Amino acid sequence: MIIVMKPGAAEQNIRSVVDYIEKHGLFAHLSRGEEVTIIGIVGDKTKLSTENLSIYKDVDRIMPVTESYKLANKKFHPEATVVKVGSTSIGTDNLTIMAGPCAVETEEQLMTIARAVKKSGATILRGGAYKPRTSPYSFQGLEEEGLRYMQTASRETGLATICEVVSLDAIEAAVKYVDMIQIGARNMQNFILLKEAGRSGLPVLLKRGLSATIEEWLNAAEYIMSEGNENVVLCERGIRTFETATRNTLDLSAVPVMKEKTHLPIIVDPSHSTGASRYVSSMAKAAVACGADGLMIEVHNDPAHALSDGPQSLTFEQFDGLTKELRPFCNVVGRTF
Amino acid sequence: MIIVMKPGAAEQNIRSVVDYIEKHGLFAHLSRGEEVTIIGIVGDKTKLSTENLSIYKDVDRIMPVTESYKLANKKFHPEATVVKVGSTSIGTDNLTIMAGPCAVETEEQLMTIARAVKKSGATILRGGAYKPRTSPYSFQGLEEEGLRYMQTASRETGLATICEVVSLDAIEAAVKYVDMIQIGARNMQNFILLKEAGRSGLPVLLKRGLSATIEEWLNAAEYIMSEGNENVVLCERGIRTFETATRNTLDLSAVPVMKEKTHLPIIVDPSHSTGASRYVSSMAKAAVACGADGLMIEVHNDPAHALSDGPQSLTFEQFDGLTKELRPFCNVVGRTF
Amino acid sequence: MIIVMKPGAAEQNIRSVVDYIEKHGLFAHLSRGEEVTIIGIVGDKTKLSTENLSIYKDVDRIMPVTESYKLANKKFHPEATVVKVGSTSIGTDNLTIMAGPCAVETEEQLMTIARAVKKSGATILRGGAYKPRTSPYSFQGLEEEGLRYMQTASRETGLATICEVVSLDAIEAAVKYVDMIQIGARNMQNFILLKEAGRSGLPVLLKRGLSATIEEWLNAAEYIMSEGNENVVLCERGIRTFETATRNTLDLSAVPVMKEKTHLPIIVDPSHSTGASRYVSSMAKAAVACGADGLMIEVHNDPAHALSDGPQSLTFEQFDGLTKELRPFCNVVGRTF
Amino acid sequence: MIIVMKPGAAEQNIRSVVDYIEKHGLFAHLSRGEEVTIIGIVGDKTKLSTENLSIYKDVDRIMPVTESYKLANKKFHPEATVVKVGSTSIGTDNLTIMAGPCAVETEEQLMTIARAVKKSGATILRGGAYKPRTSPYSFQGLEEEGLRYMQTASRETGLATICEVVSLDAIEAAVKYVDMIQIGARNMQNFILLKEAGRSGLPVLLKRGLSATIEEWLNAAEYIMSEGNENVVLCERGIRTFETATRNTLDLSAVPVMKEKTHLPIIVDPSHSTGASRYVSSMAKAAVACGADGLMIEVHNDPAHALSDGPQSLTFEQFDGLTKELRPFCNVVGRTF
Repeated sequence: MIIVMKPGAAEQNIRSVVDYIEKHGLFAHLSRGEEVTIIGIVGDKTKLSTENLSIYKDVDRIMPVTESYKLANKKFHPEATVVKVGSTSIGTDNLTIMAGPCAVETEEQLMTIARAVKKSGATILRGGAYKPRTSPYSFQGLEEEGLRYMQTASRETGLATICEVVSLDAIEAAVKYVDMIQIGARNMQNFILLKEAGRSGLPVLLKRGLSATIEEWLNAAEYIMSEGNENVVLCERGIRTFETATRNTLDLSAVPVMKEKTHLPIIVDPSHSTGASRYVSSMAKAAVACGADGLMIEVHNDPAHALSDGPQSLTFEQFDGLTKELRPFCNVVGRTF
Repeated sequence: MIIVMKPGAAEQNIRSVVDYIEKHGLFAHLSRGEEVTIIGIVGDKTKLSTENLSIYKDVDRIMPVTESYKLANKKFHPEATVVKVGSTSIGTDNLTIMAGPCAVETEEQLMTIARAVKKSGATILRGGAYKPRTSPYSFQGLEEEGLRYMQTASRETGLATICEVVSLDAIEAAVKYVDMIQIGARNMQNFILLKEAGRSGLPVLLKRGLSATIEEWLNAAEYIMSEGNENVVLCERGIRTFETATRNTLDLSAVPVMKEKTHLPIIVDPSHSTGASRYVSSMAKAAVACGADGLMIEVHNDPAHALSDGPQSLTFEQFDGLTKELRPFCNVVGRTF
Repeated sequence: MIIVMKPGAAEQNIRSVVDYIEKHGLFAHLSRGEEVTIIGIVGDKTKLSTENLSIYKDVDRIMPVTESYKLANKKFHPEATVVKVGSTSIGTDNLTIMAGPCAVETEEQLMTIARAVKKSGATILRGGAYKPRTSPYSFQGLEEEGLRYMQTASRETGLATICEVVSLDAIEAAVKYVDMIQIGARNMQNFILLKEAGRSGLPVLLKRGLSATIEEWLNAAEYIMSEGNENVVLCERGIRTFETATRNTLDLSAVPVMKEKTHLPIIVDPSHSTGASRYVSSMAKAAVACGADGLMIEVHNDPAHALSDGPQSLTFEQFDGLTKELRPFCNVVGRTF
Repeated sequence: MIIVMKPGAAEQNIRSVVDYIEKHGLFAHLSRGEEVTIIGIVGDKTKLSTENLSIYKDVDRIMPVTESYKLANKKFHPEATVVKVGSTSIGTDNLTIMAGPCAVETEEQLMTIARAVKKSGATILRGGAYKPRTSPYSFQGLEEEGLRYMQTASRETGLATICEVVSLDAIEAAVKYVDMIQIGARNMQNFILLKEAGRSGLPVLLKRGLSATIEEWLNAAEYIMSEGNENVVLCERGIRTFETATRNTLDLSAVPVMKEKTHLPIIVDPSHSTGASRYVSSMAKAAVACGADGLMIEVHNDPAHALSDGPQSLTFEQFDGLTKELRPFCNVVGRTF
């Protein structure tokens, strides 16, 4: 932590800052430059609320020199993390493809979709049993019954499974039935849920919040990891901007940025970000090209009658076409699926 | 709901849309214009997932003609709602001032602050007992103990009290000790929490999410109200934009927009939005001038040593100065406090 | 300028940075803290492209300690600037009200509007003669003819006049006919135009770009001022965000921020920012309350038939009502008009 | 154009709208649905300012049914446009690589870079002679002298050339020396410049504005095309969002969206969007994968001493490495270079 004083800061104001630091059992290292005086803080910074120093007179700014996240930080954990999920792993040379319906509707529907996506190359079945919907009057999911169907589908097809959780009750239920849990964009800073996800023992897919910075996203991962659970996978799913031609703006630059900052795997969801099935294929290819470890894609047996997110869901045929198109890109980047 | 077909839509594609509507027990009203054909849907739209119609060939766009929120909608409830909170009410000719520390730290601190803010004109004491912090390594709040201090402060000063809740446990505890609960910006779309807040019986202050549209915000209010709790107050606290001179961008236009769209009271938080105590006074006055029903302001006995959000907290003297400055503005808009 | 090296930076990499600085005739001041080494640059920084230092190994970040704008900076010019415009001045205890049509349509129309807005208290007549329209097929303005009408209106009513300029030709014409020129939001970083506006000798109203930060906005003012023209007035007119309930998001916090950073006057345009006449009054009052030096408001004799921006234009009656409502707010803030 | 009236609109208010339309020589087609009445406007809409209709009582919203851009619209020009630039063409099966320095500094520098980028596969040399810089105190470019160096470099290497223009003077000069002109992000809505670019006869590269929607971007292209110049190439270069880990947020979804909406070629600039050379390679590959027709990449002989944008410039070695890595992706998408 570095405190930069304003040009021409009064000596007594510099002294006040130093006193504040020392009163908290830390050491202040002064450096008097030509233009400004800089104060480095040495010691355990968790002992003081450094942001308050901005109130002190003549303080210009406070600059952290280390990131606030530790466990997710590549600096302290240089080798890439591989997350095991049921019968498969994320973060290897495989391209992980998670596919399935936005919402689990019936057992038959889910089984049909599970078989189709497996055939085309998916290794993880996605399916929503608890749906966080903008309006309270929209379909909210089958809840535990939906999770049971996921388990059945997994047993029959061998696919690993992932479900979004929205509450502690949902986590408790998910532990019994599925291989991985997902924290959705709207809950990325639901810190209670993050901690509980950390304690669940299950690997966690953490979607980026709609207006979350990359640093906040990594701090959300830190919440999960600080409970002893290092099996976290990040998922870029679009951020909110002024553009309305797509539902959100897919921030693919987050892929190389994350590869630099963290050892956690990162996957991309081209379905939710674009909100339109006709753009999914292009963005899926771009994601693979820029280094994503996997994809999450919505697939439905009958998009026109889907209970949720039909417009962005691929049909079986479209999904199969997409996976065929992805293979040569995988060859180029050295991945298989 | 209106479906606009593309110019020159094929007859069979128009037919498909009509069939889809009728299959769901609804009636399709066709209007063939010179440029385009428009299909109105008549009947109970909750029976079909209308967004899916965008998949149909030659469908150009789908336009809702009614808002998705009903209980919060001024159209169906034209008179303004007054929310009773302990010894006071929000949404009357009073300007409600909620003031207090970001985080409850000790009983003594809270008592000192409570007495000070009361003296200056606040009627509701705010204080965080459960702190949703970006980093897991920051101070997370005193939890139930903090709530007890709030109750003591209320008993001694007569102030009503409000606390943020972040989990079902926190709601259960809050019901025992405080007069109003707050859903914070990061939980605005934590739908489970919204529903539980609705069931709590307590009035709810609903802060706007960092990237929430006004429509999503009203739908979040609808989640609370659909559980039978009509005592919802909205709180504008800044949205996330590219500007970095202030922590967030306070969207004061939301005040007149909300006065048009809903009967619920709306208050403004100039502390969190600007993130700097020196801007609080200007924005508080602007909020009163444009019609806000109240203000939420952070006040601390010693901002430089606050455990959370010190830089945006006012001292007692600053807060007292602010309330003195606000009174003539209140006179102009016909409010008192 | 301060260079912060990464924790554990190699000695040779620190050396490279120092060499680079010294090779450009500047002096490097080293400060070796416990955590990091910091290098202060002393001397005339215009001699080197400091951003390039970020390429050097082990450089963590580069921190300017002084703002890039000088002439607009309050630090070097603490007293507030008053800008004289024709018969009036901006930045005094007067609240400057600029009012008039989005586009000048006919001489009769302009005269009617000029008389009406003067009667209600406006001192500057606005009117667009060169319209930057999103589509090339929209009405583009009367150009020089429109400027002539402005002059006539000024002569008859005594109002000062302001017109937007979009090209060097427009500036040349404007110099002949009006008292102040306006650089619109879309041209805020049209640096050629800014320089020419600086050379024109006329006072300049500089609107904020749709996605301009406050710092970029001040740098745009610096372009005008660096040509020897210190008569610059800033105009906040809304920024682009994800919210769609208003055309743009009026960033009123920019008013107190600007009052801190610069000595230039700042006015607010509630018409373009909200895009709807029914929100203009609330935001005009809020602007006055938070310290704006003036307002720019669109007024039209017949909004329903306006050639541009009808929906946000006030009728004469609405405008007169607004000015009446503004007077008591002016009393409170110590302004008159 | 469709006018949707509010539910329960009064008959006389519907009548007023119809009268307004008919008074302008157009025909109003009424459709009375169960919920709402809809009025279609038939005839030449350029005759009336339809946005004004929103002022009429009981008007709920106004919906264009056709896009405002015609010449750029794929609906009226389904086959993809190929733009010839000097010795090469954009929009074919070739991947066009434009490469070169941000700013032309000296003739020697430019020649060295031109030879290097040609060797690695570039076909167009980029180089800035007129630099739109945020601060008036930054290097502003060599102007016409820079253009002459570009011509020399072109003659020696056979590369086509592109330069940004910022004024009418710059366009006049560019016509003499280079093969293509560029309208930069900050001038995307400098409509005077767009028209003049249209009249220049040169092909135009139109960069997306920092906060421009896709629709505004296409309308800007329309300005150029409406002057009879159909040789327009779009360039996505990042939009402004709240994220700060990259300089801007590269919106790659704009590539498939543009392929759907327009016949004009689209290229991607991964240098300006990310602002960091270490992310350029990943985003260049992603751009190729999702269908971009080309890339614009900053290359410098000595980034650490570049006069502009050093941190995002690739060295010759990095650029050569990138083109080698791009070739297999080109094979997959069926392009060569």
